[in-house]
Amino acid sequence: MNNITLLISCKDAEGIIASVTRFIFEKNGNIVYIDQHVDAEHGIFFMRLESQFAISPGTPEAFRSEFAENIASRYGMTWELYTDRKKPGMALFVSRYDHCLYDLLGRYNSGELHTEIPFIISNHNDLRSVADRFDIPFHHIPVTRDNKEQAESEQLRLLQEAGVDFIVLARYMQIVSPRIIDHYPGRIINIHHSFLPAFPGARPYHSAFRRGVKIIGATSHYVTEELDAGPIIEQDIARVTHTHSINDMVMKGRDLEKIVLARAVKLHISRKVMVYNNKTIVFS
Amino acid sequence: MNNITLLISCKDAEGIIASVTRFIFEKNGNIVYIDQHVDAEHGIFFMRLESQFAISPGTPEAFRSEFAENIASRYGMTWELYTDRKKPGMALFVSRYDHCLYDLLGRYNSGELHTEIPFIISNHNDLRSVADRFDIPFHHIPVTRDNKEQAESEQLRLLQEAGVDFIVLARYMQIVSPRIIDHYPGRIINIHHSFLPAFPGARPYHSAFRRGVKIIGATSHYVTEELDAGPIIEQDIARVTHTHSINDMVMKGRDLEKIVLARAVKLHISRKVMVYNNKTIVFS
Amino acid sequence: MNNITLLISCKDAEGIIASVTRFIFEKNGNIVYIDQHVDAEHGIFFMRLESQFAISPGTPEAFRSEFAENIASRYGMTWELYTDRKKPGMALFVSRYDHCLYDLLGRYNSGELHTEIPFIISNHNDLRSVADRFDIPFHHIPVTRDNKEQAESEQLRLLQEAGVDFIVLARYMQIVSPRIIDHYPGRIINIHHSFLPAFPGARPYHSAFRRGVKIIGATSHYVTEELDAGPIIEQDIARVTHTHSINDMVMKGRDLEKIVLARAVKLHISRKVMVYNNKTIVFS
Amino acid sequence: MNNITLLISCKDAEGIIASVTRFIFEKNGNIVYIDQHVDAEHGIFFMRLESQFAISPGTPEAFRSEFAENIASRYGMTWELYTDRKKPGMALFVSRYDHCLYDLLGRYNSGELHTEIPFIISNHNDLRSVADRFDIPFHHIPVTRDNKEQAESEQLRLLQEAGVDFIVLARYMQIVSPRIIDHYPGRIINIHHSFLPAFPGARPYHSAFRRGVKIIGATSHYVTEELDAGPIIEQDIARVTHTHSINDMVMKGRDLEKIVLARAVKLHISRKVMVYNNKTIVFS
Repeated sequence: MNNITLLISCKDAEGIIASVTRFIFEKNGNIVYIDQHVDAEHGIFFMRLESQFAISPGTPEAFRSEFAENIASRYGMTWELYTDRKKPGMALFVSRYDHCLYDLLGRYNSGELHTEIPFIISNHNDLRSVADRFDIPFHHIPVTRDNKEQAESEQLRLLQEAGVDFIVLARYMQIVSPRIIDHYPGRIINIHHSFLPAFPGARPYHSAFRRGVKIIGATSHYVTEELDAGPIIEQDIARVTHTHSINDMVMKGRDLEKIVLARAVKLHISRKVMVYNNKTIVFS
Repeated sequence: MNNITLLISCKDAEGIIASVTRFIFEKNGNIVYIDQHVDAEHGIFFMRLESQFAISPGTPEAFRSEFAENIASRYGMTWELYTDRKKPGMALFVSRYDHCLYDLLGRYNSGELHTEIPFIISNHNDLRSVADRFDIPFHHIPVTRDNKEQAESEQLRLLQEAGVDFIVLARYMQIVSPRIIDHYPGRIINIHHSFLPAFPGARPYHSAFRRGVKIIGATSHYVTEELDAGPIIEQDIARVTHTHSINDMVMKGRDLEKIVLARAVKLHISRKVMVYNNKTIVFS
Repeated sequence: MNNITLLISCKDAEGIIASVTRFIFEKNGNIVYIDQHVDAEHGIFFMRLESQFAISPGTPEAFRSEFAENIASRYGMTWELYTDRKKPGMALFVSRYDHCLYDLLGRYNSGELHTEIPFIISNHNDLRSVADRFDIPFHHIPVTRDNKEQAESEQLRLLQEAGVDFIVLARYMQIVSPRIIDHYPGRIINIHHSFLPAFPGARPYHSAFRRGVKIIGATSHYVTEELDAGPIIEQDIARVTHTHSINDMVMKGRDLEKIVLARAVKLHISRKVMVYNNKTIVFS
Repeated sequence: MNNITLLISCKDAEGIIASVTRFIFEKNGNIVYIDQHVDAEHGIFFMRLESQFAISPGTPEAFRSEFAENIASRYGMTWELYTDRKKPGMALFVSRYDHCLYDLLGRYNSGELHTEIPFIISNHNDLRSVADRFDIPFHHIPVTRDNKEQAESEQLRLLQEAGVDFIVLARYMQIVSPRIIDHYPGRIINIHHSFLPAFPGARPYHSAFRRGVKIIGATSHYVTEELDAGPIIEQDIARVTHTHSINDMVMKGRDLEKIVLARAVKLHISRKVMVYNNKTIVFS
């Protein structure tokens, strides 16, 4: 064990940073990154800390229990500890649009994403050939009004069998039900094709065209039960003019969507995102 | 008369551009700028044309009537013709925020705005000293629930006496009533402190903070009866993070607001904006 | 023949637009797009015009010769006429970086690029597997100091056999010699990983890091004999801070490079770029 | 004394953060902001820390000497300590362009800048009226080849008499000599009208136009002896097209320049900028 990343939140108090950094110091660790944030409204403290250990500070289990006893319990911390040993497993859900899928798989093949992709799930068969090109297993699970519950059971079975850590909806055109969300709270990443909260729901480019906006956007967020209202991870925008048709916006938007989604996925994989009060803290 | 700018709209048809450009050509005019747009949904044609005449093509009145008879009537055109002789008159409405006012008056003094500012109207007295610094008459017209109609009559009287062409609401914190709007249709420019249609109405930075957006914006639009729903002229955005308080957003937003409003004002002054179907065509 | 795109340049004169639009009108064509530009410094007129013909205006040959005689010769025009019948052929040159290649091939497969890709040429064998995934022929032509002339002959032979219209250097890490450039003037598109003219030549991210810039960029340009000094088609930028290592910049830059290159390729394919005086006119 | 801001740099070592935060903690201070950076290339550690004290931790002098003895000496720190008692004094140097001056004075009057402006120095008399509008003393000190040394002596005298802390060159069109720079190292802020390192020196918009770039920029940096080569504080850009004349770029650039300069000034005033190896660390 050489690298440890800690994500911590607790009620704000004096001395937290001093206590945590001293704990790492006494284990002969070197802090290579520390960032903290205080939610002034609610008095909550958040911290992300990366440390390196030339000499192993012991088993992860021992480290965890010592940290829990000596530090976490004192401040009533909610905390997560990650080593860099295991790549998180990422399941991809898609429908018919291929631009986000091509982009993520290209990055995956380039070694840009520190993750494993066990499979792709789709409610349509259209993108099977893309999955095949990249040698990723593809599961076609049609979703209709009648079979929704059964389809979700099948999705859950696949997710759990593969030990998936988080799910990326890469333009998956189905609403994910609370049943799935409850299994992956703060671990389902969606890309919405507007600068939320403008134009939630279906066909946002049509709405943007009708409203005559001069800027379109894309938003990546964690999925919660309320549609398109979960914590925003990343957004970006592009300029449009009166010359752009709805189709032009769709084409421009594709580039936005894939870049914004990829950024959010990379932030999530590198444990840089914390969620509180339906908002994200995104450490740099 | 040396420069003529034409703004034209009509049902799309073959031969419009050929007819208009030939008309200018036969008057010995040189076209220095032509841009056109077709609203494909409704089949409407829009054109902006700037032309220069080494030799005067006659009185504006004669030019107008010849254009009306020979060209405009044939295609059922709605059209406007501007010479560069007269600077348009711009009234400023303000309340308590001074950043847009300082910015516009600085530009005005620098000669950046081809306009005349006959006066500033405010429902508060706070910014009188700014007006004084720039030697612009300042009219304090308080607006209350009880005196609203009377206050508007006073505003209208001042506007009409000065022959004002258009109104700029430079963070004027009052809703302008239909009575004023009817006198200045498509000629009242507002700045709203969000990327509309997100966060219309009051306190958008508070809403943006609560929603946890990663991008804030500002929108300049023409005022219509529906609040914050008029044709958008210009928008721009700035990035924010979890570290920004509401007050930080307000401060960042000030820079956005003043730049976006100034751009919209300059586009309007240079006759580059046409309105159709509650959207703008903004020629470059 | 239903769609005709004309690109025209000539010495500026009165009546050009009127003449051209009348010519189209008399052929019963409808102008769906017209944009023009005058280089005021040199008095050169540029125009791009798209027109649709419900009834065929005759063979392309007849149309061309009539336009040449009646219009082009009168104004001494340089002009090109395109129909939408034939997709232009695009050769890809790559070396070892795969992000631009993945991006272009993903778009190609999605049908986003109106082009044919007959083959990929590379001086290394690394990306053969990517070409294989997308079923594009891959030619490995190593380039050394000793075999450069022979390698280029082989490249030229392949290009000419396939009737390639333009070349895209998708992070091809070799300098293309005048011999190739002369065969494809204004038809070789490169992506450079800096906001030119800052940091031309090799290792621009290293230079950007050393200089401590707060913004990095990417530039797509036509290749000319002077290194990284050809006409710029498109540029874009991303923000960086002191926290970004050279490697972080490289990673951020990959997203810039692929998006900027794709935009330039799409502009070129849609005949929206004209070149004059080592600069581009990019019609919208 | 309630607020203390510490800027620290030293050779990187284990335990620095723990030591500093414990020191603050033991003084009953609450850390409201901490950010750190390690220059991995040179192994240098940088930190900015803001702390609040409900009960005064003693006189600033005592606090300083205790910090020096117990912490700074142990790690060989270079450090600065600021309380919020005294507003820094900012001298403005201008020539003939007024947009940055109007912008800074507008912000100053709005209370946006936590600074005092004792006077404006100019080598021309043109902007005296702007200074007068804002009631700021204006010193006209012409600079010619012959009187440069004498002029600088006069500038220095005024700067020192007023106890000026830093200087802002708000489009001051003279090269500041080493003599002045030596008195204000890392404390003279310039705005250059290009995205450095592209187009250093005079007339960058002309060079940008000639090169045909699609993006123009502005750069605010600390002045060093090498022209336009000092540490960059902030940059921003705007898009241009072939339709923009040099004059259009100048006008677009004005908005960039004033916003970028104002951002740099605010960062400097809030002690968020550290300089090392001719680069800046800009804490957020």
